[in-house]
Amino acid sequence: MSQSPAAVQTFRAIDVIRKKRDGGELSRDEVASLVNAYTLGEIPDYQVSAWLMAVVLRGMTRAETAALTDSMLHSGEVLDLSWLRAKKVDKHSTGGVGDKTSLVLAPLAAAAGVAVPMISGRGLGHTGGTLDKLEAIPGFNVNLSVTEFRRVLETCGCAMIGQTAEIAPADRKLYALRDVTGTVESPYLICASIMSKKLAEGIDGLVLDVKTGSGAFMKNEKDAAFLAELMVETGERMGKQVVALITDMDQPLGRMIGNALEVVEVVDVLRGEGPEDLRQLCLELAGWMLHLGGVADSVEHGKRRGEELISSGEALAKFRQMVELQGGDPRAIDDPKRLPNARHTKKIVSPKSGFLVSLQCEHIGTACVVLGGGRERKEDPVDPAVGIVLHKKVGDAIFAGETLATIHYNAEAPALRAGQLLETSYRIADSPAQKTRPLIHRVIGRVTEKLGDKN
Amino acid sequence: MSQSPAAVQTFRAIDVIRKKRDGGELSRDEVASLVNAYTLGEIPDYQVSAWLMAVVLRGMTRAETAALTDSMLHSGEVLDLSWLRAKKVDKHSTGGVGDKTSLVLAPLAAAAGVAVPMISGRGLGHTGGTLDKLEAIPGFNVNLSVTEFRRVLETCGCAMIGQTAEIAPADRKLYALRDVTGTVESPYLICASIMSKKLAEGIDGLVLDVKTGSGAFMKNEKDAAFLAELMVETGERMGKQVVALITDMDQPLGRMIGNALEVVEVVDVLRGEGPEDLRQLCLELAGWMLHLGGVADSVEHGKRRGEELISSGEALAKFRQMVELQGGDPRAIDDPKRLPNARHTKKIVSPKSGFLVSLQCEHIGTACVVLGGGRERKEDPVDPAVGIVLHKKVGDAIFAGETLATIHYNAEAPALRAGQLLETSYRIADSPAQKTRPLIHRVIGRVTEKLGDKN
Repeated sequence: MSQSPAAVQTFRAIDVIRKKRDGGELSRDEVASLVNAYTLGEIPDYQVSAWLMAVVLRGMTRAETAALTDSMLHSGEVLDLSWLRAKKVDKHSTGGVGDKTSLVLAPLAAAAGVAVPMISGRGLGHTGGTLDKLEAIPGFNVNLSVTEFRRVLETCGCAMIGQTAEIAPADRKLYALRDVTGTVESPYLICASIMSKKLAEGIDGLVLDVKTGSGAFMKNEKDAAFLAELMVETGERMGKQVVALITDMDQPLGRMIGNALEVVEVVDVLRGEGPEDLRQLCLELAGWMLHLGGVADSVEHGKRRGEELISSGEALAKFRQMVELQGGDPRAIDDPKRLPNARHTKKIVSPKSGFLVSLQCEHIGTACVVLGGGRERKEDPVDPAVGIVLHKKVGDAIFAGETLATIHYNAEAPALRAGQLLETSYRIADSPAQKTRPLIHRVIGRVTEKLGDKN
Repeated sequence: MSQSPAAVQTFRAIDVIRKKRDGGELSRDEVASLVNAYTLGEIPDYQVSAWLMAVVLRGMTRAETAALTDSMLHSGEVLDLSWLRAKKVDKHSTGGVGDKTSLVLAPLAAAAGVAVPMISGRGLGHTGGTLDKLEAIPGFNVNLSVTEFRRVLETCGCAMIGQTAEIAPADRKLYALRDVTGTVESPYLICASIMSKKLAEGIDGLVLDVKTGSGAFMKNEKDAAFLAELMVETGERMGKQVVALITDMDQPLGRMIGNALEVVEVVDVLRGEGPEDLRQLCLELAGWMLHLGGVADSVEHGKRRGEELISSGEALAKFRQMVELQGGDPRAIDDPKRLPNARHTKKIVSPKSGFLVSLQCEHIGTACVVLGGGRERKEDPVDPAVGIVLHKKVGDAIFAGETLATIHYNAEAPALRAGQLLETSYRIADSPAQKTRPLIHRVIGRVTEKLGDKN
């Protein structure tokens, strides 16, 4: 429709929608005007959802992605942690099954002298969430005010909370709309959502753990690498040191899935025990956090320092301190019986002998949701006690009748359904898989070149 | 996000959005469920606008387009005109500048014994609307009830009204949403919108006039032909005889633009006078209407019959009858002074001699809007008296100082702006254009093959 030649030229949402629909590149001002007007309620959901769908199908340039991230970041409060002498480094994972590394890394990096102001999310769908895991610890409060958050951070060097109303309100509003309009699955929108929240934490550096495999949102490595590169470049454009590790999520990480069970495994790792894959990934990520945080010359040095802090008990002491500062019962750390325990357990046994060649990771996550340990809808409650313990991982030899997994449950019907899901998740063959997937597929980030590091 | 395996499978808008987003083909049921739920207010605007944008960018198959048209058609009342012995045929134009053919064709076809139940729209943007032109006739009522509409149709064989609340309510709701979400420009959505309303008229045949050129929505012939084929095939799938003429809109049709002025030109054509391009197009479209209406063996025969009905005065008498039946003053037909007249006129003169090689058609339509003769927003009022008379058309020789156009206006400031627009619309060269654009570019429709017609 033609415009009257004398029409005043101001921001009109429809022009921005059309430009993106036709494959154009939006200016920084256009992106900012759209985000600001939406956050203030000046443009309706139905215009923004049309724009979001155009973004999903047309994509965004790097400059547009940075502009979107920046607008969302500045839609709310950006924490000023410059009063902390230590460098501030966070870690973010794109989500997986059994991924409890955040609970290990925050105290571990803090014990090394890096400040970790970690703002996390809840589990949704087949993936777990850091906040749900923390809340399995009796009394642990993830809803600190910004003032309380600062105090915990100052006292022990790390603090772990949920998103506050002040941080990136544009993201909260946009995410709720994306969730119901089929516009979640865009690397550009995912990047802006993650990076705006993380950069609002006032950090200097960020280690991204981008998952790939059957239990990840990005099933193939190419998509994971694309998202990783996008996030790294967006962070770098905003003056932050960012590195992304593409890590494996083709089977659950560690052996425990379920909120209280995962806390137990976290404590195991902080004691120098725990399953090897989880321990290795934690050390690798810690190596990067310590390096970006300026307390290790190299990632290798950071890993060794991490191992020392675990051996010395300092990392576990830091975890105990943080739990106590955030209102949690520190005795639950040393005595798993003080964590929520499910009333019943039941074993899944192998019908045949052979080698475990694959574990359908998303099904295992879904089995935990079915038990009540996760949520399908944001408003669902979570049962912290239920979950699954895996006794066999990919590559293991199995005898007929041997226990593959133990289900921890509180109600019979969900346990039956979870059992059925688990039984279909195991692929057992006569010989082991020819190729094993690496734990760490790739490392992405300019920082890797600058360092001349072994990684 | 994975679903619990036991989740109940019912219609969910988000699944349909995702399927279209990912390029899938929606089933008839999926399309119908979406349209029905939206019409009933069961799904929100923001989900439907995301789906509309996915349709704009992913397109639709012919089956999906037919399903969408069918769902929209059956969202409201479908007129049953089977009690009329005559065949019911309508004509629809995609809109242009100076396009007043509907006002000629309805009485002309009715005079030939074809019933014309015409439901039309208002002008928007640079294009005029049939309802605004009819309302320039003092007293003419376009808001008849369905009962009154039937009575006029029965009495004189044609009736011309605006869209009623009962006809295709899904289209009204969807169009309002498309208008504000940048999702108007999709041939699939345009096709479903037009065809659902036209087929709700209970017609047997439809002649489509798809405009192409600088004054049309489809600037190039390829896009116009694509839309035409889509509409013809959709109509044929629903058992109707449909033909589409791709006709020229690179300059205004006829010489008059503006509501009352166009009524004057309509009467000229019905008297056997008027400009040649308008007269030729009316006869061509009438030829097709009479042929589809079963009162002419061929289009050529239909054209000749149309000429006879004009010469005999029967077509004009039919127009006079319809005007009177719909409350209009029939004396205004024979005496233009009884139509609204603008208070002032002013001439646009040529600065040089030469040949008129092109007329920027959209600018001329916009000039009429600026004068108050059209509307930028649906709620704007329209001044029926103002407009533009073109004294020169493409191909004409021009002497310096000769009048190119006369502006009919009621206020000075808009007339100045309209004059500036007009002055920039004329391209005058030393020699005539090498190629002249045909009035009728192509005829599309299976009916053309079956007939072995000369067209």
